[in-house]
Amino acid sequence: MADHIVVFYPEGKCVEAPSGDTVLAAAQQAGVSIDSSCGGAGACGKCRVILRLGHAEVEPGPFLTAEEIGQGYALACQTQVADDLVVEVPTASQLGELQILAGDIEAPGVAAAVPLVQRLELEVPAPTIDDNSSDLERLYRALRASEADYDSFDIDLAPLRELPQMLRASGWQACVAVADLHRRARIIGVAPSCKEHHSFGLAVDVGTTTVAAHLVDVELSMAVGAEAALNSQIAHGDDVISRIIFASEHEGGLAQLQGEIAKTINALVAELCEAQGLDAQQIMSASCAGNTVMTHILLGLDPAAIRRHPYVPAARQFPLVRARDIGLAINPAAVVYCAPAVSSYVGGDVVAGVLATGLAEVEELWMLVDMGTNGEIALGNRDWLMCCSCSAGPAFEGSGIQYGMHASLGAIERARFDPAADTLEYATIGGAKPRGLCGSGLIDVLATLLRAGVIDRAGRIDLGYPSPRVRVDNDQAQFVLVWGHEVGREDDIVISDADIENLMRSKAAVFAGVQVLLDSVDLTPAQVDRVMVAGAFGNYLDSDNAVTIGLLPDVPRERIRFVGNTSVAGARMTLVSRRARRQAAEIASRMANLELSAVTAFMDRYVAGLFLPHTDMSLFPSVAAQLEREEQERAHPEGGERT
Amino acid sequence: MADHIVVFYPEGKCVEAPSGDTVLAAAQQAGVSIDSSCGGAGACGKCRVILRLGHAEVEPGPFLTAEEIGQGYALACQTQVADDLVVEVPTASQLGELQILAGDIEAPGVAAAVPLVQRLELEVPAPTIDDNSSDLERLYRALRASEADYDSFDIDLAPLRELPQMLRASGWQACVAVADLHRRARIIGVAPSCKEHHSFGLAVDVGTTTVAAHLVDVELSMAVGAEAALNSQIAHGDDVISRIIFASEHEGGLAQLQGEIAKTINALVAELCEAQGLDAQQIMSASCAGNTVMTHILLGLDPAAIRRHPYVPAARQFPLVRARDIGLAINPAAVVYCAPAVSSYVGGDVVAGVLATGLAEVEELWMLVDMGTNGEIALGNRDWLMCCSCSAGPAFEGSGIQYGMHASLGAIERARFDPAADTLEYATIGGAKPRGLCGSGLIDVLATLLRAGVIDRAGRIDLGYPSPRVRVDNDQAQFVLVWGHEVGREDDIVISDADIENLMRSKAAVFAGVQVLLDSVDLTPAQVDRVMVAGAFGNYLDSDNAVTIGLLPDVPRERIRFVGNTSVAGARMTLVSRRARRQAAEIASRMANLELSAVTAFMDRYVAGLFLPHTDMSLFPSVAAQLEREEQERAHPEGGERT
Repeated sequence: MADHIVVFYPEGKCVEAPSGDTVLAAAQQAGVSIDSSCGGAGACGKCRVILRLGHAEVEPGPFLTAEEIGQGYALACQTQVADDLVVEVPTASQLGELQILAGDIEAPGVAAAVPLVQRLELEVPAPTIDDNSSDLERLYRALRASEADYDSFDIDLAPLRELPQMLRASGWQACVAVADLHRRARIIGVAPSCKEHHSFGLAVDVGTTTVAAHLVDVELSMAVGAEAALNSQIAHGDDVISRIIFASEHEGGLAQLQGEIAKTINALVAELCEAQGLDAQQIMSASCAGNTVMTHILLGLDPAAIRRHPYVPAARQFPLVRARDIGLAINPAAVVYCAPAVSSYVGGDVVAGVLATGLAEVEELWMLVDMGTNGEIALGNRDWLMCCSCSAGPAFEGSGIQYGMHASLGAIERARFDPAADTLEYATIGGAKPRGLCGSGLIDVLATLLRAGVIDRAGRIDLGYPSPRVRVDNDQAQFVLVWGHEVGREDDIVISDADIENLMRSKAAVFAGVQVLLDSVDLTPAQVDRVMVAGAFGNYLDSDNAVTIGLLPDVPRERIRFVGNTSVAGARMTLVSRRARRQAAEIASRMANLELSAVTAFMDRYVAGLFLPHTDMSLFPSVAAQLEREEQERAHPEGGERT
Repeated sequence: MADHIVVFYPEGKCVEAPSGDTVLAAAQQAGVSIDSSCGGAGACGKCRVILRLGHAEVEPGPFLTAEEIGQGYALACQTQVADDLVVEVPTASQLGELQILAGDIEAPGVAAAVPLVQRLELEVPAPTIDDNSSDLERLYRALRASEADYDSFDIDLAPLRELPQMLRASGWQACVAVADLHRRARIIGVAPSCKEHHSFGLAVDVGTTTVAAHLVDVELSMAVGAEAALNSQIAHGDDVISRIIFASEHEGGLAQLQGEIAKTINALVAELCEAQGLDAQQIMSASCAGNTVMTHILLGLDPAAIRRHPYVPAARQFPLVRARDIGLAINPAAVVYCAPAVSSYVGGDVVAGVLATGLAEVEELWMLVDMGTNGEIALGNRDWLMCCSCSAGPAFEGSGIQYGMHASLGAIERARFDPAADTLEYATIGGAKPRGLCGSGLIDVLATLLRAGVIDRAGRIDLGYPSPRVRVDNDQAQFVLVWGHEVGREDDIVISDADIENLMRSKAAVFAGVQVLLDSVDLTPAQVDRVMVAGAFGNYLDSDNAVTIGLLPDVPRERIRFVGNTSVAGARMTLVSRRARRQAAEIASRMANLELSAVTAFMDRYVAGLFLPHTDMSLFPSVAAQLEREEQERAHPEGGERT
């Protein structure tokens, strides 16, 4: 039986598979983990992959529409290898280490769109004495004859300087790198051939605390790697306000912060390139999504007025700049796009999120809660869009929490306390030895300890709780989550009253934002058809627990979806699709911003939210019922009913 | 009687003039020379000036049409001062030192057009909490509300970085420098106010031998200074071919030549700025017109293929670049436009000339002969345009001629030999002590010596001619034009057989080009309604003498016009007018190029032209008649007729 080559991305792993093997079997052979809960029976629909190159027979069924098949989707366990294939394993179908912060949404149907920078292989007509127009005109003629869809053409001076020798050396072949400046083509690079390597783009979520970068193969329109790191600006303050102060009140502060974010991104670029064996020069474009302050600092724009009444940013739609202008260590001529902002406190990250989730195109009413250091909430559908921003703080990113950490290897991302056994069941990212807790783990811990009665509704640890895990250290009540000796650590991993207080402030701010935003349009949580939670939580969020602690409104749990890092997902879409860039601009301009600082009710709502789940239990009927049930169970452990 | 301030440009001289004085009187008082042959009687029409600011009563008359008055033209002697005035004295009306190479054509009706870079004073709406869109959007809003005519807006990163602080410091005033990128506005600079100074542009004729630069006040759309210098590339070869060889066959040769032309222009910029007391940062735009090779080198583009079959330039329409990209010492963000070329050997200088002369818009048939180191000839009207280029060599720019010089102070620009008195009457540029001969002086000398019989029709000096001026030095026959002792020089200014041979080669090449071009469209010189001669001849050319030596065809002399440096004139127009830039592009694309190297008849014509005026005297009937008459007069000095 003939063998075929199957390459799996983003891992870049390659295997020879005999005809007739399933893609799932090939993946297992290649050491690529694909989620397949049903064991390959075609019954769970979780092993969705995208066929990027090569042909395979795929039939529609309960888990795949014909339209999805048209976009390349297939079930790995139901698809046989009958050709050489390039297969992308979307984050949602991945298992294991690559989950780390790669959590994103696939961008459907954008593969055919015009990338921010694309390369085109051209046959340039050679000149004759009867047709001796210039090299540049010949190049434009070849471009016009290609499938490239631009209104006009222009060229940087540097590639024009290379053009004459290059064309003659290549025998009138050219590979041009074309930037899309609002339908105008700008040639930013020329080479004799596109065949030597692919060209790449960088999608970056520029978070206040965490920066996540995806390396995207622009030609295949797919991610080939993902990395994340702490924003090294963090040394100059935890939140956007302290960064603005540093930028505007320290001599050279803005330049210093700009250098820090460039340094952070460049370190990610170096890791991504090393992993893929790429030269960073091959990265010809970058798309960045960040809150308004982070975007300002990235571009070196003065953010001072953002913090002062009436809260005015320098820009909301940002000009396209070049990598060299902002110190990014990719191709110096690479074009850098920044997602447009709505206001001083609702930035391009939210716009990218709205874009990536499709919120702006649906008929239903959807809500997106982006749990960054700034919590942002977007609400609406294809007819209207509203948003607001509340300073949630970085607690759910692990900052300000003693054993908090961002969602990387060894972070506890799921946890459940079993009071009877006095044990904490937990799972870490990558299955590694626990190092601390990321956001989803913190939510689980808060909820499970509340249910178990270890902490009360005010968030205080009950020192009378009958477990050695409860103790006082340095005048602080704390609960031991993981005994150090059990996992070979010197210290125990704990959560303290102070940690819980921080988390409650964060969740109260987010929930108050949700309430005020819904109030402003006279709607209730029950009217929201889908609540999407975005953030760098790893690949998991327990929606019931998120409701239990009062972070999210008490709606039927199936309406709550964890959507991962929608900021980087939107950045990826804008990197590869002109339509996405146009949509992002449209979303930014039509989204109405509710300035929470101008809403007096916000502070009342916030204070009322400093309880678990809330002061007003009528807002959380299902949680109230459950807590009551569990309290009764504790009081009557045999399960007998009180009369 | 109230006094008014009158400022004269390009001198920048200023005077207080009482109401009722004429502008001419005010100019005389200010020490500004205006041509007024009739002594201020309104009878010669030579004292034309342009009123740039202020009001004056001007009536139409034989020397001024109502349309010209609408453009600001007035006769200085017929116009009374009744307001503060800014008056431009066009080159054609200037007398004295400023004639030096400033010879150009006024660009009519372009004042209202969109400059390459213009500054606009804007009132930016201050933000409120109800209207807190970004600084940039407010700026765009103010721009849209202004009279500025652009389709879309964009901004460089540098001014955007300055914008927030600048707007707040200025109290929401802004002066923006806006580049016109094909109807798209690109903000390249911001300042609190436009009032501190004007903004300027640089118009440059990038000649192979001579570089001429005009400093243009973009706000008044007028030149305030002119300078010229030798192209310092000349150390690497006299003509474009030797420059191409140096650029392409020496390691780093192109960069070196690029540096030389930048250095030459920068020296002119320094002189112009010093004379006007300007900071070169105020120069926000530059428009350059040069032949195709000079433009390539200026932009750092490889010219190698221009010299090789099939003679292909890198580009004919050049991208707009920034001053910093090519090392011009003006504002680094300044936008640099290069006039488009027709072919490898018909460049932007010719296109600028066709633009400046209006040749492409007339109904009649006009011809433009541009006497640069490359001689270029354009022919046509509003319906069709043809051109060709012939390697004339730099003789008429004074290069390769022992006492040749470019048209600057002390150059003999007019001359007439009086055989009876054995004296040479001459005039120098600026009335200075003679230093040598520029192109127009060389033409006069050649013609007058031919008529006097000092040189024969083969261009040889008659050693038997009865004058001590004829002598042999170093085996070379020579004719003394100016005795050194008469003007306080150590050496005599002479012309030699070798000089004459060089000049004849140049004029033969130009005339052969004229013939071949006319032949190619089946026309004769008699059908040409106007023959315009352009070149850096100073401000004068004797058309009869130009025909006498066979440089120009034998047409009625009133059809011949000397039009000065049309290359720099066109550069000025494109600097201040979008319409002119559009026209230049259109001229370049619709002008058909006749490749002389492909026309075998050219060499025959050229060889036949190596006589004075020509081997074929039937082509020059009026010259033949005159020479015969003069020969007879010499033979029969009493004027008696032979029978």
